[in-house]
This record gives sequence, C-alpha cells and structure tokens, in this order.
Amino acid sequence: MLAEALQYADDAAARFLDEYKALLRIPSVSTLKAHAPDVARAAQVIADDMRRIGMTTVEVHQADGYLPVVYGAWDGAGADAPTVLVYTHFDVQPAAMEDGWHTDPFEPVEQDGKIIARGTLDSKSHVMIHLKAIESLLATGGAPVNLKVLLEGEEESGSAHIFQFVRQNAEKLRADVIVVSDGSLPSVDQPVLVYGLRGLMTMELTVFGPGRDLHSGHYGGNVHNPIQALTEILAPLHDEHGRVTIPGFYDEVMPLSDAERAALRDVLSFAEAEWHAVADAPQIYGDPNYTLNERMGARPTLEINGIRGGYAGEGFKTVLPSHALAKISCRLVPYQDPDTLFERIKRHIESITPPTVRAELRRIGHDAPAFLTDYTGKAMQAAISAYTRGWGKRPILSREGGSIPVTVMFQEALDGEIVLLPYGYKGGGAHGPNEYSVTEMFHKGIKTTLYFYEALHSVAD
Amino acid sequence: MLAEALQYADDAAARFLDEYKALLRIPSVSTLKAHAPDVARAAQVIADDMRRIGMTTVEVHQADGYLPVVYGAWDGAGADAPTVLVYTHFDVQPAAMEDGWHTDPFEPVEQDGKIIARGTLDSKSHVMIHLKAIESLLATGGAPVNLKVLLEGEEESGSAHIFQFVRQNAEKLRADVIVVSDGSLPSVDQPVLVYGLRGLMTMELTVFGPGRDLHSGHYGGNVHNPIQALTEILAPLHDEHGRVTIPGFYDEVMPLSDAERAALRDVLSFAEAEWHAVADAPQIYGDPNYTLNERMGARPTLEINGIRGGYAGEGFKTVLPSHALAKISCRLVPYQDPDTLFERIKRHIESITPPTVRAELRRIGHDAPAFLTDYTGKAMQAAISAYTRGWGKRPILSREGGSIPVTVMFQEALDGEIVLLPYGYKGGGAHGPNEYSVTEMFHKGIKTTLYFYEALHSVAD
Repeated sequence: MLAEALQYADDAAARFLDEYKALLRIPSVSTLKAHAPDVARAAQVIADDMRRIGMTTVEVHQADGYLPVVYGAWDGAGADAPTVLVYTHFDVQPAAMEDGWHTDPFEPVEQDGKIIARGTLDSKSHVMIHLKAIESLLATGGAPVNLKVLLEGEEESGSAHIFQFVRQNAEKLRADVIVVSDGSLPSVDQPVLVYGLRGLMTMELTVFGPGRDLHSGHYGGNVHNPIQALTEILAPLHDEHGRVTIPGFYDEVMPLSDAERAALRDVLSFAEAEWHAVADAPQIYGDPNYTLNERMGARPTLEINGIRGGYAGEGFKTVLPSHALAKISCRLVPYQDPDTLFERIKRHIESITPPTVRAELRRIGHDAPAFLTDYTGKAMQAAISAYTRGWGKRPILSREGGSIPVTVMFQEALDGEIVLLPYGYKGGGAHGPNEYSVTEMFHKGIKTTLYFYEALHSVAD
Repeated sequence: MLAEALQYADDAAARFLDEYKALLRIPSVSTLKAHAPDVARAAQVIADDMRRIGMTTVEVHQADGYLPVVYGAWDGAGADAPTVLVYTHFDVQPAAMEDGWHTDPFEPVEQDGKIIARGTLDSKSHVMIHLKAIESLLATGGAPVNLKVLLEGEEESGSAHIFQFVRQNAEKLRADVIVVSDGSLPSVDQPVLVYGLRGLMTMELTVFGPGRDLHSGHYGGNVHNPIQALTEILAPLHDEHGRVTIPGFYDEVMPLSDAERAALRDVLSFAEAEWHAVADAPQIYGDPNYTLNERMGARPTLEINGIRGGYAGEGFKTVLPSHALAKISCRLVPYQDPDTLFERIKRHIESITPPTVRAELRRIGHDAPAFLTDYTGKAMQAAISAYTRGWGKRPILSREGGSIPVTVMFQEALDGEIVLLPYGYKGGGAHGPNEYSVTEMFHKGIKTTLYFYEALHSVAD
C-alpha cells in the first residue's frame, strides 16, 4: 500500500505543484476585510479537492462574522486503526509590492528550485502536502489510519473562531494523534522536530498629545511630541543587554534544566549558522546569559512589530502629530500567563508615561500561551521514524521561537497526542517579502507524511 | 486714492473670495512629483490674473527640474516713490482624507465664517490678499508705491530654486522694502508683528538591522529590532525637561537680553491662552528655564516629525523589520549654523548607535538659519500703523517659532528692509487636516495692505 502511494505521488508530482500554485494565486489575506471573499474562495477550492480525492465527509463551516473553516474526514481504515487529526491553515499574511517583493506576491514564480509567492511557506505548502498525501493513499487502496483534516482560514488574523469551533466539535474531532503542520525547518537537509513553542500576546500602544496635528515651527519645544514620547516610553523597556525591564516580566519563567541546556548546546553551532545565513544582521543580539537557541525558543520577548506617527513619506512635512502608535508583541514561554503579563506591562507603561501626554495600551487578539510537550510519546516516535526515512537523516529535537496558538488550544480541548510536522524552510521568509518554498521539500513532505501514517499504524499494532 | 481702493475692495469682496476658492481647488502640492502639473497650473492662473489687473511685467520662470516662480511688477508710482517687493508662495503641503480631513482638502468649504481647504492659510490667502489689494489700487488710479511681486511654487518642498533665482535677479528685484507674507496671527482680533523667526534643518535617520524582514517568532530576542534600536537612539536625545542632550547643541545660542525677556513676559498670558486653545495637549512641555513664548521663538528644538517601521496598519503582522526610519528637524535660533549642528548630531548619533544595528543620518533640504531684524525700521513702523488701522488694535511685537527660509535669503541677497506681514490665523491648522482661514481676516488683510502702502508712501515723504 505504501509503495503504491509513494509511486502515485512521484507520478503526479508535476500536477501536485500546479494545484499548489493555483491555491497560491488566491490572495486569502485574513487580516484585511477586503480579502474575505478570497479566503472564502480558497476554502471552496480546498473543499472541492477533498471531495475529488475521495474524502467521505467534507464541510465548510462559516460562523457569522468569521472566516471559513474546512473540515474533511475519511474513516476507511476501520475502528481498530488509529485516528489522526491534521491541522493547518490556508489564510496568509498581507503582501504588497511596496514591501519589497520582486514579483507579484500572488502570482507564483518557479525558479532555482523554489516557488516564490505569499503563503508558499506559511502555510499553503502544508495544506497541499497533506491533501496530496491523502490523495496518494486513497487513490491506491486507502490509508493505514483514519483521517480528519481541519483547515483554518483565520490563523494569521488571530484564530478568533477556530478555538470555539474545536471546543464545540470536540467529539467530532476526537483523534489519537493531532498533527499540527505549520512550521519550518532551519535547513533543507536536516529535519528538526519541535517539542516546545513560544506563546504570543499582541498589543497596540497609542500615545496622544495635542488635540490635532500642529505645525512644529510654532509648537516644537513647547508641546511634547507624541512620537518622541512614544520613543521615550518604548526605549527603556529593554536594558542594554536586550533584557525586558518590566517588573515581573520573567517571574513565571522556569529555569532550563541542565539536560535541556546541554541538548540545546549540541545544536548551537547549527542555530548560529542558520542565524548568520538568514537573519544577516550586524551582530547577534540579546541576553548574554543564554545561548542563541535558548533565546530563540526558551526565553520570552517584547517586540515592536510596527510603529507610525507624523509624516514619514516622500519629502518632508514639518508636522507635530496629535498621536503616534506602536504594535507590540510578547513571545511567551511555559507558565507565563498572557493576562497577568499584560497587566504588568500596562501598569509599568502607565507608571513611566509623562503627564504631558496620554498613553493607551490595548490587546488586539492573537494571544496564546506557550506550548511544551513530552518528546517520548508514540506519535513523536513515529514522526522521528518518518523524517528519518523521508529526509534520509534523523531529526534534531528542539524548542522553537514562533507561536502556533492552536497547539495550546488542542492541548486544552482534545485528548490526543500532539505532534508538530513542519515541512517549510525557515530561510524562505515567512511573513516577509519574496516568501518562498523549496520544491524538493514539498515532495519530501508528501513522502514523509506517507511514512508517518505507516509508522503510526505499526506503532499502534 | 486710498478711499477709492478701499471702496473697490469692499464692492468686489464676494468675487475676491470666489477667485481665492478657485486657486484653492488646484492641488499645488510641491513635495509630491505627481502634482507638478498642478503647481504649474496654479502659476499660470496667477500670472493671468496679474496681467488682468494691470501689472505691466508678468513672467513665469521655470528652471529645468524645478517648479515655477511667478514674477509681476508695476512701476507707475514714479522714480521718487518707494519700491516694495512682496514675497509669498502658492504651493501647499500634501493633504489626504485619511489624515483626518472631514471634507475634500481641495474643494473649499465655506462655513461659520471660515474657508476650509489645504493652503487656505499657508499660503494662498496671502497670494490672493496681495493680488486683490494691488487690483484695488490699479483699478482706482494706481498704487502709492512701485510694486514687485515674487510668488514661489516650492516653498513647502525646500525652496530649492528660489534662492538661486533671487541671487541671479538681485538687480531686477531691488526694493526699498521687502514684504514677506507667509505667517499667521495667534488671534483673530489681536495683530502680532514678528521681528524674529527660527531657522530650520531637516534630516532623515534610518536604522538598518537584519538583511530583510524576519518573523519575530524565530528572531525576536536574538536580532536587535531596528524599530526598538531607533527608539533607543531617539529617546535619549532629550532629557526629562525637554532639553536636547546632544553635546554642543546650545553652544551658539545667545542669552536673551533682560529687555527682550521683559517684553516677551508682557505677552506671556496671551501666548498661554493661545497655546491652550490651539495645541490642546495635556500640559505645556519644555525647558523650565524659559517661558512658553521664549520656547516658541527663541530656543532651538529637535523634533521627530515622522516615524515608520514594520507593519502598523489594520490587524497585526508579527514581523521583525529590516529597517526603521524617522524624519527629524531642528528649529534654529540666531548664530546656530545648520552645517555645524548637523555634524554634532551625526557624531552623537554615531556614538550612541549600538553595534547590533547600523544608523544612517542624512540631510534632506529645507535648511535655513534663523532670522532676526531690528524692529525700529521705517517699514516696521508703517506696518504697525497699517495693522492699527486695519485691525483696530496696535500690534504686539514678537519672536516666532516657524521658519521662513526666504527671509534669511532676502537678508543676504538684497538690501531692502524686511518686514513680515502675516494675515493668517494660527489656529487654522497650517500643515494639518481641515486647515482653514477666517474670511474676515481675508478682507482685513486686503485693507491692511492698502494702509501699509499708504503709510510707506507717507513715511518716505
């Protein structure tokens, strides 16, 4: 059964890529309301494909005011076989030429073994890898496990609805193993399996000054400029070593065990090489008490993801603006509670805001606590075996920096063992301009998924 | 002659307003290249009007790559009469609905005694006041002075060409009195004549970090975020009292004399009332060693006029951007040299930029040293008389915060006595959204100009 499915995937490789590109052409940007019809269109295209490849239950759920969720199931493996729930998302981050794209972000370009387009990596490659692995199995006699596939359409805009959907459909979604497939590997050749993920909390800080925009000629030096005040509030939130200075920020952070520090130290040179290749900044930054990969996966952060105020376009405008704004996020580690942390940040910002301006900090969704799982479970062992066969190399076990809020939600709402199966390439620039996926990894991903189901089936026996 | 001209202005008041509105409808934005044809169109409309009202020499000068300058002259007062050169500008700052305009910025709206549109105040009211005062004189027998009118089309974008134009045409522009008409009065009822103006230097600071935009999940806490680094560079440029901390920043600033401090203290309550009415910020800001109006007109500043980095639009994008940018300007007082100051700022920023990022500071035009004139001259006395008659109140003498770079240029290139005749209302929000002029001040401005020429003629006798 496995051999036939692998052969089918090989034979259909070119068509699979074409279908992937067709999905990339749909600008399913979930944070911009104008793109809601595109998100709905992507959901329909996926549901149609699920029906075509032989999934027996296919549903598009769309609650009022939310973006769609696509659900598909196949239970032909029988009651004794394990059931796997696969989760990923088909919505994408915004993208526009002026952000630095060299080609239209929604017209995929294939070149030098890459496919360049918004969402190639995050996360339409995962959507297509899983659908095409399932197609390869169902077209050649069926899968060794029962399958449930849950594809979200608003992961990039805060997953407002999926949490509720999973809680309300816990029975329907019940599975022995929950596969979350939305990450990336730091290298094309070396697989890495992640057992911990940082959480996320997002905020917006607005500093208000004068009642309206003023002329800086008259009011410069006698009105506290809100841009300046914003920098005066933001700058001291880190010390000169990059440590967050907010009282209580690190209170719940558990020290890393010696064993885990040693394990992370083993792959440090790997992490450093990746940093220099991808980040390409003048120097590594951050708390000198922790190594680079500890800072990446095991330490919380406070990040300014966006800032705007006054006139910063072409030319110059001698304006003293009425307000200035920053988008701020925190990456959380286990035991840090977003609500508690938000209150501490809010209180601290209130305490350092000068009386010449008014500051307003508010949360804007996207929150998730951190995720940490035991890496000795059965699904993890099946994943290790699958990557070893699919990639030809035993995977490294690691903790990662990025958040996948749904992992925590699955942990809370469902009983199955959670495993993360990442098939993207971290160097491909998720969320940035010219995002790309590596074509070879797309094909490896399909095969690894086939090996994974086979290994799960064997472990379950 | 004066009585007839005043009567003519009264009779034509409604038509004058219509012509003013027609000029406001032309979006002559000089900082945006796309609007260059609009600036050219405004120049033609003005030149046509100069010819129609009887000016004998009318020229539109446009050097390669620059925006036009309109020049008109009338020498019918004879060789014994004084010659007046009037300067103002017909280009405007950018304006867009998303900046907070309630109505189309280029479709003037008349309501509650105001006219709302971009450029009403800065400075198309001055263009029209002077043209319509001249029309009123030439239509009723001629002016008591010889007239030269110089109208610039790129004041808001750095006056790149006018400086050269004035130097090259010094003989043609020779005048006994140079009227610069581009300011505003802090109150509708109380005229203020300005004898000092701060200078201006504009800069752009870019902080570069990683080679491209990164995902803040992976790289947060190990790459120095350029937005954060920018705030860390900008915030310490002021101390907690609003004093600029750059070494040498205040070195050339001359102490205010006791007499001048006393004169400024006399009008302090007036300045404070205006501040609360217009600025409407939580508290007055700035160096406690100086009063509010000293800070406005006699102290240099460093202002952040714009900032941008990352994603600060709708929703949230967990990006760690490759760079962040701030637009910075300094208001200068007499004896401060823009070049010297720029070098000090650049050196200081270099010294505080951490090795984890790269900072680049560059000048972007718009520079001018400060302006200060003797307030006992003949033209100033004529202006005091004209405002006293036109407004019904003796004007206050003051130093102002805003820069009018051409005043310094006229001081250097020509011999005449410079006088500033402001007819705008400071509360009208120059450079901001919903800029407006007060209709009554438009009519008062025309009459005051007529009184000014009459007074100059008498003083010259």
